Amino acid sequence: MTHPVPNGAFITFEGGEGAGKSTQLRAVAPRLVALGYDVIATREPGGSPGAEALRDLLLFGEHDLSARAEIMAHFAARCDHVDRVIRPAMGEGKIVLCDRFFDSTMAYQGYGRGNGDPALLALIRSLRDLVGLTPDLTILFEVGLETGRKRIAARAAVSDAALPVAGTVDRYESADMAFHTRVAHGFDEIAREESDRFARISSEAADIAAVTDQVVSRIETFLKGR
Amino acid sequence: MTHPVPNGAFITFEGGEGAGKSTQLRAVAPRLVALGYDVIATREPGGSPGAEALRDLLLFGEHDLSARAEIMAHFAARCDHVDRVIRPAMGEGKIVLCDRFFDSTMAYQGYGRGNGDPALLALIRSLRDLVGLTPDLTILFEVGLETGRKRIAARAAVSDAALPVAGTVDRYESADMAFHTRVAHGFDEIAREESDRFARISSEAADIAAVTDQVVSRIETFLKGR
Repeated sequence: MTHPVPNGAFITFEGGEGAGKSTQLRAVAPRLVALGYDVIATREPGGSPGAEALRDLLLFGEHDLSARAEIMAHFAARCDHVDRVIRPAMGEGKIVLCDRFFDSTMAYQGYGRGNGDPALLALIRSLRDLVGLTPDLTILFEVGLETGRKRIAARAAVSDAALPVAGTVDRYESADMAFHTRVAHGFDEIAREESDRFARISSEAADIAAVTDQVVSRIETFLKGR
Repeated sequence: MTHPVPNGAFITFEGGEGAGKSTQLRAVAPRLVALGYDVIATREPGGSPGAEALRDLLLFGEHDLSARAEIMAHFAARCDHVDRVIRPAMGEGKIVLCDRFFDSTMAYQGYGRGNGDPALLALIRSLRDLVGLTPDLTILFEVGLETGRKRIAARAAVSDAALPVAGTVDRYESADMAFHTRVAHGFDEIAREESDRFARISSEAADIAAVTDQVVSRIETFLKGR
């Protein structure tokens, strides 16, 4: 017996490299199902067949795009994902858990690659308005840069079915420390600007289950308050 | 000895399938060079390495995108093309001749696929503003739908190095007659709305050289009036 959520709920998981978003999403989804919710788990860039094709081009393509074009291509993928997966699922009363959404574009392309260029940040805000869907709740996983980099290095050493070639890292995972410092600063700025939407959770400690408990608790509080 | 054009000039060639845009562009470019202008010829979707990768996905990809996402992906490709090819060339005083630009997105995605949906037309206008480059002159080649279709059918029967597989037609060339009727209507609407920017030239007759003469004459008049 599931509890349909009127108009669904859209919950995003955000954070830098090695923050544990994806691990937590895989752990949290079945916990919410066990609580009686109808849940779908998805990710960006990608999440729909057309958006996954764009993902391949953005993360592993031979040619990069100009800073503005890269931002637009991320929003093109996002738009397909919203139109074909997220909105329809919400329309069926489901809880959509999404690994990355537009906050990642702001942090990575706006603050990371774009170094906070106001014209790029304004472009991202305009495209966000055009897509027209804001998460109901965003969990921001926070981890020290060193811890995050160690986790990525460990992951790169083993095979991962989600990556096209075992042991590869994508365009962003392979960027330098200064880039990731700007990304972390970007997430911090965004979470301050829209503090009502954000729940900040530290994922520094190795105890994954304890973090999962915190996330589930935060989501339950949110769902009961609706 | 070339005549540099201050701030360059951006001239687009538009029209439906089989209107002869590409044939005319190949004929017009050397004529302008012979007149002493520095010219580059380019095309959309594509025109830069990253945008050409997006072109492959948009025209020949396995999965289509939602109507809104397809429009955004076209503008993402366009943005790379503008940032990396068109603007730099204009900055060097060149005349940029471009086979298709945002008017094609309006005609094909807005009027053709989108059937004139006001929300899609508004999205295209917003993205056009975000890219921020309007052609100085647009040549609209007009041909009857039957004539255009016959030309495409003839082209599909022969090998063309510009197509990934000899004799293939892309997603739009293979669309039905009702689609192409809407596209033609779209071009007509756009050319009326921005009549100062448009030069409408009939390419119905088989005399390609006579059409080229008209186009060159129209471009010369424009360049001398600047």
